[in-house]
Amino acid sequence: MRALTVLPGKADSVEVGDLPEPDPGDDLLLVRGLAVGVCGTDREIADGRYGEAPPGRDRLVLGHESLGRVAQAPPGSGFAAGDLVAGVVRRPDPVPCGACARDEFDMCRNGRYTERGIKGLDGFGSQWWTVEPRYAVRLDPALGAAGVLLEPASVVVKAWEQVDRVGARAWSEPHRVLVTGAGPIGLLAALIGVGRGLAVDVLDVATDGPKRAAVEALGARYHCAGMAEATRAAPDIIIEATGVSEVVVDAMAGTGAYGVVCLTGVSGPGRHLRVDVGAVNRELVLDNDVVVGSVNANARHYAEAARVLGAADPAWLAALVTRRVPLAGYAGALAARADDIKVVIDLD
Amino acid sequence: MRALTVLPGKADSVEVGDLPEPDPGDDLLLVRGLAVGVCGTDREIADGRYGEAPPGRDRLVLGHESLGRVAQAPPGSGFAAGDLVAGVVRRPDPVPCGACARDEFDMCRNGRYTERGIKGLDGFGSQWWTVEPRYAVRLDPALGAAGVLLEPASVVVKAWEQVDRVGARAWSEPHRVLVTGAGPIGLLAALIGVGRGLAVDVLDVATDGPKRAAVEALGARYHCAGMAEATRAAPDIIIEATGVSEVVVDAMAGTGAYGVVCLTGVSGPGRHLRVDVGAVNRELVLDNDVVVGSVNANARHYAEAARVLGAADPAWLAALVTRRVPLAGYAGALAARADDIKVVIDLD
Repeated sequence: MRALTVLPGKADSVEVGDLPEPDPGDDLLLVRGLAVGVCGTDREIADGRYGEAPPGRDRLVLGHESLGRVAQAPPGSGFAAGDLVAGVVRRPDPVPCGACARDEFDMCRNGRYTERGIKGLDGFGSQWWTVEPRYAVRLDPALGAAGVLLEPASVVVKAWEQVDRVGARAWSEPHRVLVTGAGPIGLLAALIGVGRGLAVDVLDVATDGPKRAAVEALGARYHCAGMAEATRAAPDIIIEATGVSEVVVDAMAGTGAYGVVCLTGVSGPGRHLRVDVGAVNRELVLDNDVVVGSVNANARHYAEAARVLGAADPAWLAALVTRRVPLAGYAGALAARADDIKVVIDLD
Repeated sequence: MRALTVLPGKADSVEVGDLPEPDPGDDLLLVRGLAVGVCGTDREIADGRYGEAPPGRDRLVLGHESLGRVAQAPPGSGFAAGDLVAGVVRRPDPVPCGACARDEFDMCRNGRYTERGIKGLDGFGSQWWTVEPRYAVRLDPALGAAGVLLEPASVVVKAWEQVDRVGARAWSEPHRVLVTGAGPIGLLAALIGVGRGLAVDVLDVATDGPKRAAVEALGARYHCAGMAEATRAAPDIIIEATGVSEVVVDAMAGTGAYGVVCLTGVSGPGRHLRVDVGAVNRELVLDNDVVVGSVNANARHYAEAARVLGAADPAWLAALVTRRVPLAGYAGALAARADDIKVVIDLD
């Protein structure tokens, strides 16, 4: 079968090659790969800055945002041939930490987790893949190709859960959320915010195009004039999905009293900035603000994300996939363009 | 009666003058002022950088860390003449926000709270003061002069509560806490940490003296070689009580996975620093870390703080008061010295 692989740690080593088809044995689902989404982590891996091959191997199958159709399912697995599914990315270590032992592997403490397509486990960027039933999530068939958004949606569901849980440390009744970054994470965060009846603002740099259209289609307000304008209304919550240093700092100082900033953007080190730390610290203290980092998602978040996607307007979701490229065109998918929301590699 | 007053907004305007004795009416406790503690906020007010006089007045009675003895108590108030008491600092606005309406005035959202000795209400730096029974806290008589530590202890109890509540957003079992700053907030935070059975490290700049002695008397570990060394063990929790920009930034990046940094130090704006925001943001996200600001305390925290102080070694608490000055010597109290832990102005 054809598969998209990379030599982790080596830039420009991504290629499409042939691999043996995986054997599901008695316990695994055998899945026909339909598509993988591409995100910043894939680009970091492709640039040789992240990623780890499975033990004893040089190459890693890339792709952690998955979509596939079950070809074969073990009896009693809860799945059947024809099911539209996506796979959970992270797995706990066989000797789990306290969080992993409680199925909170998204909160792993010892870093010994593995991640499909990222760290020590092959990803889903192949024409066939296998997955343990407990790490597979069934999608509403009506979602079709938009089902590839499950993984980013799971990350967003977890981020909102973190916002809720730290928000509940005292009385809380948020009204206004600002989302920074109108990529898939930001837009799905806005979708959930609107669904909760919050006033939602979304900031990005594009003046027009599919990002603005997606925001406005939700009934949310789009901002492209910068953080000063976007934070003027002193949001109760900021969900930060750019990882851009200036935006991160402005977010920390940009909420109203008892604000929550949820950081979800994975930035690279070495992005220095002159910061008025005294002012940021003073604001955080005197306002009882919180900044919470959130990454990854556990099986519970995936299940809730499947529900969120199933309840959303399929046309709105489909519009988030702004480019589809065939497997042979992977290089184009790995090169980001300004107007991209989600770029998808078709495996079929 | 003699009282310590200030013209808020005007530097070097603190003076001791005569004011009429307050009238408790039918509803208030009449309290003989014994002492007030001095903290950074008092110094900000004395420097003209903070503070607000009561409506229609120019001068504010300074002092929010109180200790007094009840001279007269309304029947049914729950207090009696002779009780050792301290007063709660903050009051909600008559038209409360949602938090203030739930007695969480430490989490006030609209900023319309008042604070005795700070914002719109006279403080406790006078030979007599009055207080509503619901905003008075009875202290263990054995505490004696160390009862003046109740207000900082209430701030610390709230900070620990915030750490606990944000820590509970997923599985959590912290083992190690680093406290930065061995002033009263830091030392009382360390006291509570030790009481919980945590491994406690405390960082300060003094190489020796009463701060180090207080830390070591708790059985905690004292550090004075800087944050790199103090964070080497990757603490689960950092309670930041310096407000120093470099320490704040190092704290944000200095915890282990799923770390909580609680900021309690009120810094001034204008303290710029070149920060690798990309690295700090990446660490917060990939580690699911939280930074929570915490200020002030509500009546519940004061009650718990009275319990904490009552259970502590009175000699250890007494050693935190490193200088006592008479009311006439207020200027010396307002000038910080490197070895100070808590400086107290005697009102008697």
